[in-house]
Amino acid sequence: MLNYPPQLDLLFHALSDPTRRTMVDRLSRGPASVSALAEPLAMSLPAVLQHLRVLEASGIVRSEKAGRVRTCRVDPAALRTVEAWISERRTSWERRLDRLGEYLAGHSEAPEQGSES
Amino acid sequence: MLNYPPQLDLLFHALSDPTRRTMVDRLSRGPASVSALAEPLAMSLPAVLQHLRVLEASGIVRSEKAGRVRTCRVDPAALRTVEAWISERRTSWERRLDRLGEYLAGHSEAPEQGSES
Repeated sequence: MLNYPPQLDLLFHALSDPTRRTMVDRLSRGPASVSALAEPLAMSLPAVLQHLRVLEASGIVRSEKAGRVRTCRVDPAALRTVEAWISERRTSWERRLDRLGEYLAGHSEAPEQGSES
Repeated sequence: MLNYPPQLDLLFHALSDPTRRTMVDRLSRGPASVSALAEPLAMSLPAVLQHLRVLEASGIVRSEKAGRVRTCRVDPAALRTVEAWISERRTSWERRLDRLGEYLAGHSEAPEQGSES
């Protein structure tokens, strides 16, 4: 299990909540202030900040404060880490199915090439 | 928030645990019995079955029993659902960066085309 960086725990956990996915969805269209992020969400600002902390701990979102405004943005590298993990397992499964298909195709042709005995 | 199917909660939650990712990793290389899945994991069979239930609830893993052996396999459609969600947000962000780059490129050329005034 050591070959899975602990960051993956935080990344998948961060994305397991619909409010946090809504925040990532909004930020994927461009940076936003915390208040702009909170605006469509039916929850208190402290609750939004708590979700933001989970997103920042995972590395999916980064924020910086300029004056009184904290601006949040997505880190595409974190999204790519998740995407790559999934994609590698999916393609591993699909390659295996391809090999199985080739094996079965070769196997079904064998009786035609050989004798009937 | 209604445009995010609840399955995404279960999918991301299922993948947020290193033991469950180890199980998905193993299954991405081919179907396995529960005991084969449990073999490299330093935990009791009931603990493994609990993780398996979380994976099955999310739809990532399906299992069927034949005689006394329960065989587990990955459902690539579930992996594709997660991959597509991430990929759409990442490409949305990257397209935005591309448009910003084009805008800035156009903007920086403007003084050369216009007068020096």
